[in-house]
Order: sequence, then C-alpha cells, then structure tokens
Amino acid sequence: MSTPAENPKKESKKPAKVAFTLKTPKGTKDYTDKDMAIREKVFNTITKVFKKHGAVTIDTPVFELKEVLTGKYGEDSKLIYDLADQGGEQCSLRYDLTVPFARFLAMNGKEYQNIKRYQIAKVYRRDQPAMTKGRMREFYQCDFDIAGTYDSMIPDSEILRILCEALTNLDIGKFTVKLNHRKILDGIFEVCGVPEDNIRPISSAVDKLDKLPWEEVKKEMVEEKGLAPESADKIGEYVKHKGGRELLDYLKKDEVLMANANAAAGLKDMETLFDYLEVFEVMDKMSFDLSLARGLDYYTGIIYEAVTEKSAPPKLAEGVKPQTKKGSDELDESTVGVGSVAAGGRYDNLVGMFSGKNKKGQPNLQIPCVGVSIGVERVFSILMAKQKAEEIKSNETEVFVIAVGDGLLKERMAIAKELWNVGIKASYMFKNKPRLDKQFDVCEKEMIPFAVIIGKDELEKGEVRIKDMRSKNEAQGGGVTVVRADMIKEIQSRLANM
Amino acid sequence: MSTPAENPKKESKKPAKVAFTLKTPKGTKDYTDKDMAIREKVFNTITKVFKKHGAVTIDTPVFELKEVLTGKYGEDSKLIYDLADQGGEQCSLRYDLTVPFARFLAMNGKEYQNIKRYQIAKVYRRDQPAMTKGRMREFYQCDFDIAGTYDSMIPDSEILRILCEALTNLDIGKFTVKLNHRKILDGIFEVCGVPEDNIRPISSAVDKLDKLPWEEVKKEMVEEKGLAPESADKIGEYVKHKGGRELLDYLKKDEVLMANANAAAGLKDMETLFDYLEVFEVMDKMSFDLSLARGLDYYTGIIYEAVTEKSAPPKLAEGVKPQTKKGSDELDESTVGVGSVAAGGRYDNLVGMFSGKNKKGQPNLQIPCVGVSIGVERVFSILMAKQKAEEIKSNETEVFVIAVGDGLLKERMAIAKELWNVGIKASYMFKNKPRLDKQFDVCEKEMIPFAVIIGKDELEKGEVRIKDMRSKNEAQGGGVTVVRADMIKEIQSRLANM
Repeated sequence: MSTPAENPKKESKKPAKVAFTLKTPKGTKDYTDKDMAIREKVFNTITKVFKKHGAVTIDTPVFELKEVLTGKYGEDSKLIYDLADQGGEQCSLRYDLTVPFARFLAMNGKEYQNIKRYQIAKVYRRDQPAMTKGRMREFYQCDFDIAGTYDSMIPDSEILRILCEALTNLDIGKFTVKLNHRKILDGIFEVCGVPEDNIRPISSAVDKLDKLPWEEVKKEMVEEKGLAPESADKIGEYVKHKGGRELLDYLKKDEVLMANANAAAGLKDMETLFDYLEVFEVMDKMSFDLSLARGLDYYTGIIYEAVTEKSAPPKLAEGVKPQTKKGSDELDESTVGVGSVAAGGRYDNLVGMFSGKNKKGQPNLQIPCVGVSIGVERVFSILMAKQKAEEIKSNETEVFVIAVGDGLLKERMAIAKELWNVGIKASYMFKNKPRLDKQFDVCEKEMIPFAVIIGKDELEKGEVRIKDMRSKNEAQGGGVTVVRADMIKEIQSRLANM
Repeated sequence: MSTPAENPKKESKKPAKVAFTLKTPKGTKDYTDKDMAIREKVFNTITKVFKKHGAVTIDTPVFELKEVLTGKYGEDSKLIYDLADQGGEQCSLRYDLTVPFARFLAMNGKEYQNIKRYQIAKVYRRDQPAMTKGRMREFYQCDFDIAGTYDSMIPDSEILRILCEALTNLDIGKFTVKLNHRKILDGIFEVCGVPEDNIRPISSAVDKLDKLPWEEVKKEMVEEKGLAPESADKIGEYVKHKGGRELLDYLKKDEVLMANANAAAGLKDMETLFDYLEVFEVMDKMSFDLSLARGLDYYTGIIYEAVTEKSAPPKLAEGVKPQTKKGSDELDESTVGVGSVAAGGRYDNLVGMFSGKNKKGQPNLQIPCVGVSIGVERVFSILMAKQKAEEIKSNETEVFVIAVGDGLLKERMAIAKELWNVGIKASYMFKNKPRLDKQFDVCEKEMIPFAVIIGKDELEKGEVRIKDMRSKNEAQGGGVTVVRADMIKEIQSRLANM
C-alpha cells in the first residue's frame, strides 16, 4: 500500500499554509477531461480545414518583449499583462497571435516571403470576464493567415472560403460573415466631412453599433469626439446599409462617394472579391455591412466578422447595455452575447512596423498579410450548451481486463501487455483482488466498449471470454469464449466493426 | 493589387520606433514550420501511447496564484516568473505541470478521486539557457500521472511501462531508466548518521552525482553542509551501487540497512515493482541506481530518470563543470549534456498540501499520485540533429492546380474548390497569370506529390491532366489525361496508393 502520510517531519518543517482561497486566477479556468474532449474535436476540425488549404504551423513564445506589443492595440493596450521586472528584459504576455506573427515575419522575412500559417494558442487580456459566454482573460485563438505579395483579393477570398468551411464543419448552426473594407469606410468618413485626425476615433464609435443603438453611437461621436451633428447624420445614413452584390451596385451609383479615391479603390476590391467568392460558392454566407468597422488599428483592407444567432446580447433589443454585477467587476452575463465567433482582415503595414525604415522613410521589409482568427472559446461555449456532459467519453480505452475470482493481478497485467503490444487501448483495475462488480462498474463508468474476462479455470484451459459491454442483449450472457491465442484477432475484428 | 503603403498618415502619427533589437525574449524561441512538423510527430507519438493506457487530458491556466507555487520547489523557487502587479491578484507562470495538477485535484477531489491524466503544455523557468541542448526558459513538458489510492506499485509499474513504450516509439536510440526509492535513500542517510534536518540538503548533493565527480559532491556535503566526513564516506559506499535485481538481493543482506524501517519498506516496494516490471517486459531497461536522488522536495516513493547516450555532458569524463561563456551568462553548450529525457516519481502528499488540515492536523484530502514528465525539448533536439531540414515537408498539400497558358484563375479556383469539397488538400498560385515554370517551382519546393494541369483546349474538351510530381520517369511526360468528371476518382486512387 502507498502510505501517504509517513513523513510528517517534512510537513511540519514546511507547514501547508492554505490561508488563500484555492482557485485559478480571475478570468481563467481549468478544462476538465470532458471539456478537453470537445475542445480536441474543435481543434481537429479546424486544423483539418487549415491543412486542406496548405497551411503549416509555427509556434511563438507566450511572452514577447514589451516593445513588440507597444502601439499595436490602440485603446486596448491597457489590457496587456506584463511580467514582473525580475532583472533582465521587460516582457508582456501576448495579446493576440497576429502581432507575434508579424514580428516573426519581420525577423525571418528572407526565408518567409510568403507563408500560409496557422497557430492555435492561448492569448491574454486583462478584460472583464464573462466566463460562460466564453469571454475570459486567458483563452485560445485559432489563427490562419496568408502572408505574401499576391494579386488582388486572391488570398482574401481563400481566407473567407476557409472561414466558411471551418464554421460549417464545426456545426454551430447558421452563421453570417459581415464584410466591409477599411478604404470604403475611410472614404465614407471623408465625404461626410470627418477631419483626418478624427477618422480612427469615429471608426471606433461606429464599431460599437453591434452593441449599442445608433442614438448612443451618435452621442459618442458628437459629444465625446466633437464631430459636427450633420456629419454624424450623414454617416448614420451610410452605415445602416447592408446586403449583397446589390449594395455594391447601389454604392457605385453614388457619385460623391465614387469621386473619393479611397472609396473607389475599396469598391473595386469588393467587386473582384465577390467574383471569387461566387466561384467558391460562399457568397450566400456574406453580408456586405457598412456598419462593420473593427476596433484594431492595423487593418488596411477588407475586414470581417462571423456571427451566429448567439452572437447578439440577449437584451440589446430592449436597449440594455452590458452591465457589471452589483458589488463586483464581473459582467452580468445576461447582458452580453457570445459576440462574433471569428474575425479578421487585411493588414499590409504591420510587418513593416517592425522592420525599421530606409533613408526614404519606407519600411525595409513589406509583407502584406490577410488573416482570420476563430474564437474557439465561443465556439466551445456554443457546443457545450448543446452537449450533455454524461454523454462525453473522454478516454479512448477499448478493452478492460477483468478477473473473476482470485484477483489474478499478474495475469491481468500480462493480458493488458499483449493488447498494448499490438496497439489496443486497454486497462484494468489497480487492485490485487478487486471485486467483480467493481470492475464492471469502472468499465461502464468509463464507457469502455469491450471486456476481456479471465478466470482460473479458463486460463488453465487456454481460454478467455470477450464481452460487448455496450450490448444490452442478455443472450451474450458472460460473453463469448475464445481460445487465448485468438483473443487479439477477435478483438481487432470487433474494433474494426465498431 | 494590395497597396500596402497607402496610408502614410497613420504611420506618421505613430512612427515605427524599432530602437530595440527585434528578437524573442531570452531563453525563448520561435518554432518554424519544419520544427513544428517534427514536434507534432513527437506529440502524436507520445499522446498515442498515453491514450493506449486510458489517459484523458486536462488543461490548466499558464499562470497560477503565486501562493499555489510557493514552497513547492525548494532551491529552485527563485526561478519562478512572476506577473507584474497590475492591481488584483499576484500570479506566477507555472514552473511545471505537477503542482497545477495537484491544485486541480485538491479543488476537484470529489469528482476526481482517481484519474489517469496527461497534459502537454509549456512551463517556465528563469534558468540559464543552453538552447541547442533543449534547455530553455520556455519549454514544453509532456506529463502523465496516475492519481488515486491503489494497491502498492501497480500504477507505478504501469507508468514505467508507459515511459518505455513512449521512448521506444520516439526512436531516440538506446535509453536506460535509472530507478531509486526515496525511502531507501532516506534509510541510507539515516544509517550513515545524517541528522534528520540535513537529509534533504544531503539528498540534493547526491543528486549532483550525474554532473559532478564524487570528490566534489563530498566536498559540498562536508564543507558546505557540515556533514561528518565519515558519514559522507559511508554514503559514498552506498551510492556507487547500481544494477538490477541482484542489487536488491545484495541490499537485503545488509542487516544494518534492513533494520531501518524506511529502507526496509522501500526495498519491499522495489521487490514488488520488479515483479510487475518483469510481467511488462521492461526490466531490462531499468538500472536500480542508489545515486539517483532527484532534486524536488515532493517525492515520497519511487523516483526515476531516463537517460540516453546524449544525456551526459561531453566533457564530464575530463572533470569539466558546466561553464558560462566568457562575458555572458549563457552556458557554454560544449560543457553541458542534453540531460535526462524524462523523469518522475511518486508524490503522495502534494495534493494534501492544498487541501487544508483537519483538527488532528491531517490533510482534508489525500490523493496519492505517481507520474512521469517527458522532456520533449530534449527529445526534439536529439531528433533534429538526426534530420536534414530540407527533407521535412511541413505542409500536407496533396495537389497543386497548375494552368498552362492564359492564367485561367477562376478555372483553377473552381478545380481547387472541387478538390476541397471532397477533402483533398489542394492549392494553386495566387496570381492572375502565373508563369508555368514558377508554378512547377512551387510544387517542387513545397514537395506536393500531384499536379492537376489545365489548359484552355483541355477544358473545352472536358479534360485535365494529372502528373505525379515525385516521379522522375520521363515517360509520363506532361502527365496522364483524364476526363474532368473522373479527376476526383483518379486522384483519390493515387492518394490511396501513396
């Protein structure tokens, strides 16, 4: 027997102080074996799609030099986690996978002029958590990006096709990809009279339209950001439009807008993109939505966000804003939606921000990129809500070795070893003399499909019994008796027919 | 065309300051696509073995409340990374996967009285890096642990069998598992006259015997730790022994040792363990080694460490100690070995350290555990040294769609889409009118086995050509012409025969 407590002297030297509450840090959680079984399915589904499109994967450190992250996230920079100064470099936990990827390209641009890479890894944000909605401080992102100088909209259309394939295969229900273009937005702001240095702030205000009613957003533009009310109203007219190809045709008739260089370039991109999306048969999933702005500074071309029915806050219709719980700084989850399940866009200047500049002030290295990030935590929370925990088998064990009678530990071990040797997933009870009913209980609890049952008499005769544990058929009784030498063959054939 | 630099106004507002050296933080590295291809193979090999033995996986946060890690790592606690105090909780990056696992069990002990769990994740240590030997500040660990109250040595023997299966399947060459027992060691120290409060420090000194000659270790015991020289000499006699079952028989004849309760209990455990390891056919891999001590405080039973030929420092035989490079604090890698490729042991009291104590001073929860941690970075560095980088295919693409003549972009897209729809991994060149030789270059560089070649004439006739790109057989010329409707079937059959 293991005798766990026989070294009290060590314990008395270092008393177990558990004066603190035993928990994971705020906004983080453990994933149990059942959570992980679902999660692995999600990752495998996504990875399969990415690899189908030629992706390779890279891995970057969980923390970066602080300077790498500085100046990339606008207002959200305050959410970055820093490591303590313990002498040496100043580091911060990564906020997303995009900036580290751009840093990687800037460092390795010679060998990686172009790459289709995916990365599935955790990122960190000191945000207000809303855990059951999948909004956490530590969470996984699944990113796919295409880097390289290519002809217009070809990689962009493949990214959108990949996104649609992934979301379809994940089986999270109906989804829509909201689509817009930074240049079209900039053009709209320009023709509506937004001063150049107010464009990004006004864009941030527009970005809140999925969470706030227009009146609130207008108020922010006029009162907080000093925009003329008539400019705001003009913007309000534009951003209410959404649709498909017909919206493109409608905008192309807008002479004021088409006279703006940014808007015209953006609309031309969209036209090319729509052609390709039709070839890829995903145009029906798109919603060209002029209210989509995306918060991050670094986008330069198309931007998009995938939403499902669960994305919207349940009470938005009633005009309720996300609220924190009384006496706490955690969000009241009934006031927030799952949010978008994926988002991304084109960012052509981010790599150049790391490469330094030449004498003419141009970046030494320019690698245009387009990518998408799938919010797996949100996907995961949608899937978990559909699935009953007791139905999830988190182990993959195929055979449980059971002894009738006198324990037969070494004999059970020897059978398990035989099974392992040919790759069959097998286990047995870690007891010298386990009770028969206890052994069957484990088999059932762990949802193990087959039992190999041994007894002294059978072993002497060179036989074992095999029982299908899933079958409620009384006819099989104690199982089928087979010659021991045939055990492996018999089990392999049953596994093949599962 | 993507026009990357058209928004100079944004750049001029936030000038790209790259006054810092663009790099990853000290002791960390990026893994390229080729590194990751090898790494995924390693993870898959290990995971397959773990799952064969019934393991499930869990995931814990990358940082823990600081108090969770406090008092668990002895001298090495100074290597823990802390997060900055940004208001709220004090957190630290995890140092290993064992302590978070014990914390998880202490929090969820009701549902998890027993579990076989594996976890593959990164851990963090502010140590002196020796990068090419796989000793880094951020690195992966692959842990497998069996938690639960079971009969003596049954889970312990399965862990050792799992370790041998994993190392064998990883194909890193000949390995040995050094094996010892904390109680045997404690017994030896007691009969050699080591005072109770000096046992752990003396044990730490013994632990250095794989890196330092006995004379140095003795010096540390006597001069630094104040042990009587004759005690040190007695210990020196014991710890030089290693072997198999015969060492057990030899020690059992040592009446002084057998009179010590700890030593007798440890030797009894070893005898039972050896019986089971013989059933599992891994006894030939074991070296019962009395010099193995393991640094960590929390072990209470058997301890082990797997070593390969690359484990020893290259110059140890000449008496050279690990040295830092001149003018730097990085280790001179010619003076260090890869070290052990896996290690572990039994730790029966760790969960209890988190559970609080009852009035009698006993832990509220006691879950005995035994586990092993595979040092994948070291495995990885051994495998990378064997493999030529140019032979590694990091993508999985099966078909490259090539156009002869006028670009045929939408036609290439349509063919790719057809392939994707049935799950075939396909890509094509992101150019409107790519040159034929450039397309073949990509196909070759990315080691894509098959090309589908289309031309205007063929398409009009409803045909495509399929070429085996791996074959140097001139006879296939431009490939085999097939009816377009048969393309999928033809490619599927070729892929099945690869």
